[in-house]
Amino acid sequence: MDGIEVRWLREEPGTAEVLIEGLPGIGHVGKLVAEHLIEELHAEKIAEIYSLYFPPQVIIGADGVARLARNEIFLHGGNQGIAFLVGDYQSASAEGHYLLADAYLDIAARLGVRRIYTLGGYGVGHLVTEPRVLSAVNREELRPAVEAAGGGFNRDEPPGGIIGASGLLLGLSLRRGMEAVCLMGETSGYLVDPRAASGVLNVLSALTGITVDRSQLETRAAEMESIIAKLTESERAGDEDALRYIG
Amino acid sequence: MDGIEVRWLREEPGTAEVLIEGLPGIGHVGKLVAEHLIEELHAEKIAEIYSLYFPPQVIIGADGVARLARNEIFLHGGNQGIAFLVGDYQSASAEGHYLLADAYLDIAARLGVRRIYTLGGYGVGHLVTEPRVLSAVNREELRPAVEAAGGGFNRDEPPGGIIGASGLLLGLSLRRGMEAVCLMGETSGYLVDPRAASGVLNVLSALTGITVDRSQLETRAAEMESIIAKLTESERAGDEDALRYIG
Amino acid sequence: MDGIEVRWLREEPGTAEVLIEGLPGIGHVGKLVAEHLIEELHAEKIAEIYSLYFPPQVIIGADGVARLARNEIFLHGGNQGIAFLVGDYQSASAEGHYLLADAYLDIAARLGVRRIYTLGGYGVGHLVTEPRVLSAVNREELRPAVEAAGGGFNRDEPPGGIIGASGLLLGLSLRRGMEAVCLMGETSGYLVDPRAASGVLNVLSALTGITVDRSQLETRAAEMESIIAKLTESERAGDEDALRYIG
Amino acid sequence: MDGIEVRWLREEPGTAEVLIEGLPGIGHVGKLVAEHLIEELHAEKIAEIYSLYFPPQVIIGADGVARLARNEIFLHGGNQGIAFLVGDYQSASAEGHYLLADAYLDIAARLGVRRIYTLGGYGVGHLVTEPRVLSAVNREELRPAVEAAGGGFNRDEPPGGIIGASGLLLGLSLRRGMEAVCLMGETSGYLVDPRAASGVLNVLSALTGITVDRSQLETRAAEMESIIAKLTESERAGDEDALRYIG
Repeated sequence: MDGIEVRWLREEPGTAEVLIEGLPGIGHVGKLVAEHLIEELHAEKIAEIYSLYFPPQVIIGADGVARLARNEIFLHGGNQGIAFLVGDYQSASAEGHYLLADAYLDIAARLGVRRIYTLGGYGVGHLVTEPRVLSAVNREELRPAVEAAGGGFNRDEPPGGIIGASGLLLGLSLRRGMEAVCLMGETSGYLVDPRAASGVLNVLSALTGITVDRSQLETRAAEMESIIAKLTESERAGDEDALRYIG
Repeated sequence: MDGIEVRWLREEPGTAEVLIEGLPGIGHVGKLVAEHLIEELHAEKIAEIYSLYFPPQVIIGADGVARLARNEIFLHGGNQGIAFLVGDYQSASAEGHYLLADAYLDIAARLGVRRIYTLGGYGVGHLVTEPRVLSAVNREELRPAVEAAGGGFNRDEPPGGIIGASGLLLGLSLRRGMEAVCLMGETSGYLVDPRAASGVLNVLSALTGITVDRSQLETRAAEMESIIAKLTESERAGDEDALRYIG
Repeated sequence: MDGIEVRWLREEPGTAEVLIEGLPGIGHVGKLVAEHLIEELHAEKIAEIYSLYFPPQVIIGADGVARLARNEIFLHGGNQGIAFLVGDYQSASAEGHYLLADAYLDIAARLGVRRIYTLGGYGVGHLVTEPRVLSAVNREELRPAVEAAGGGFNRDEPPGGIIGASGLLLGLSLRRGMEAVCLMGETSGYLVDPRAASGVLNVLSALTGITVDRSQLETRAAEMESIIAKLTESERAGDEDALRYIG
Repeated sequence: MDGIEVRWLREEPGTAEVLIEGLPGIGHVGKLVAEHLIEELHAEKIAEIYSLYFPPQVIIGADGVARLARNEIFLHGGNQGIAFLVGDYQSASAEGHYLLADAYLDIAARLGVRRIYTLGGYGVGHLVTEPRVLSAVNREELRPAVEAAGGGFNRDEPPGGIIGASGLLLGLSLRRGMEAVCLMGETSGYLVDPRAASGVLNVLSALTGITVDRSQLETRAAEMESIIAKLTESERAGDEDALRYIG
């Protein structure tokens, strides 16, 4: 296995003007929005990404079939195609984050992407009744349109910058001539947060013109939360031992 | 020393239809089953694996002779040969897990292996009176046979997927055209668990036709537990200092 | 993205006899002094350094524009040019520290640097009323001049040596024939410390002849402290989750 | 800077039948014995080892001059030369331990070394009134001589094997045809332990015929302890902040 493997699932991958990233992160806000869009738009999977920078494990499907941890590219081919980057993990190492982000941008370049939206959560550590959507851009001229769509810009928020793919895709895409916007839904960070996701979806819809039914958003959040709750419980029970013996 | 070194102990390594992996893991269930089978079947060691992805240490034998940490391949040459992968450690780094799993599959390919069984424990954090055997496969068509042999498939168990060699061998063998089944004996995770091992052995015997005497299984578990207990005590006493000075 | 990328911002980078390093560190003493000098001397940025050894994140400017974490080289072209090395981070890995320090010295060599000053803090864990400036050199013959300028040498202080760029630039520059002096302002380590910075500035001015207005020093320290305080608060609130989901 | 750099300090490095390793470790037993021998035998430094696998820092000498962390080879040229491996650190990463141990063996091979003694401590976590010397060998035929010299072999001690250079040099030298013996002085692990060192020295003298005055052994232990105590205090005060800002 190479450091990073991209498996294209069809010969002609197609084209997309826009790439929407929703990898796992704070409150799983980005993941929830991106997976909801993929479902509602019936986007088609066109590529899988495998890497030794992902955690060394397999995921077991509902059918009992194990598969390697992976990220995926979906494509919705409308007037202007829209690609999605979703999946299981970000990176297990700091250097892997950079190398994977570059690989995602190679894929974006091949699809002809000109603008990237990275979606995430902004964890504030307490419950939020009216979640804001905080934003960042990789070129100042993108800011008015984001503000008009409802994305806020608050000095020093988030103060530590943006960690992981949602951040690096902004920084690294600039040198490839791509525009990039990061939308972060304010969230406690404790649960998969459909309200934060709904806020991000509002801004994203205004910016891209994508509109989808939202009746399944809460259901999807609840399902995702249920999986994560089991994961957390399992980690408490067995993982310390697991790491000890394996390490 | 290269990243991973495979030392073949005889010129013609032989052939095996099946590879059974039992590296250290939760409750040492897989290790106990695989080492028990090796002993009872008088399997012969045919290869040693050394790697700088293992922890940087030597193991001291009962005779006072130190040897590098290593994993080993044993072969039992019956009608269809059966190979075993056992040893001291998995990997000290996330990337090493992937690289080592690929090296194990290179060995499997050289032996002509067509099916892999990976054996492990499923830690639940409390004592279990009737331990189940949870299963995963790398192709859905393997599932009926595993169920008929007593292997269970429960949605969301284990919820975090399968970490380490037992998982990666399922995921990475698929692309080499090998079938793979993971059998996990339910265990508290606190002690080397002969009951979980016995359950795994039941399912494995039904699937492979291998039958062995089990009178030594409890004795072997007790010996393994005794070694681990001393290790744990020693880690409490000295290792924090060791790591500090060495680091 | 390569391991380390240096982007020169003009064709002829210019020349400098002296390089002053002030990367983030204990009490941000070095960072405060170097950034103060850059502002007061109106030094010009001549290069940016990007690296996958930096933490995988982007920094968001006051205008909402995200940029990759980076370090920077500034140049003040007086009689003898003075270069400055400042920026966002040191390294996320031990090996990266060495590789980045070598890259900084490649830049220094290209500018013709003959002497390096590395600036930092010496954390003592309690408030200090009259902060000393502790020193280290990479050649013994540099010591009298440093002492005459007010830099102290106390056996076994700091007892653990000097960690990171401020240390490695001393050790690694020797083999390139460059002289190097480290000045460490005694500080509690708890806050961005303008008094420690002022002490370092005294010694540095006496050694280099650089004199600048200091009326903004306290203001800059307060601004820097405010940013760091927000960062710390944010880390408490959300980062554990962030790391968990991302990892 | 390459991964590992060996700087020979004279053109003809000389020859040695024996290499004695005493890098930092539990109770600094090995370091104390090896440095004591170097002093008493007036051994000469013949090589320095630099590596990006060492912690990224410089050590400050009593004269205020900083130097890169490094390990060193000394040579005492008697009837049969004796080489010593001592220094500042082992490795900052698991893989570095393997790579450095191989580099030490390249040096040993160049000097013509046929037998290696690695010296260390065996931390038991409580004060020991009559410290034993535990032993390990890399060939069983070495054991009688070690036992005759007072080195003990106790099954399952140390139960976790031997971590770091003292262990890897045993394991990795075997494949180069070198004999190797590890001598571990039983120690609480809390302080630099001259009694454990004295015990190791007894066994080593009986095995090698080297006899040295021991009147300075306690003094050297006290000096080493004083440096380490300052280091520990300093780490408590400042290092958490240091790592945080630098990381």
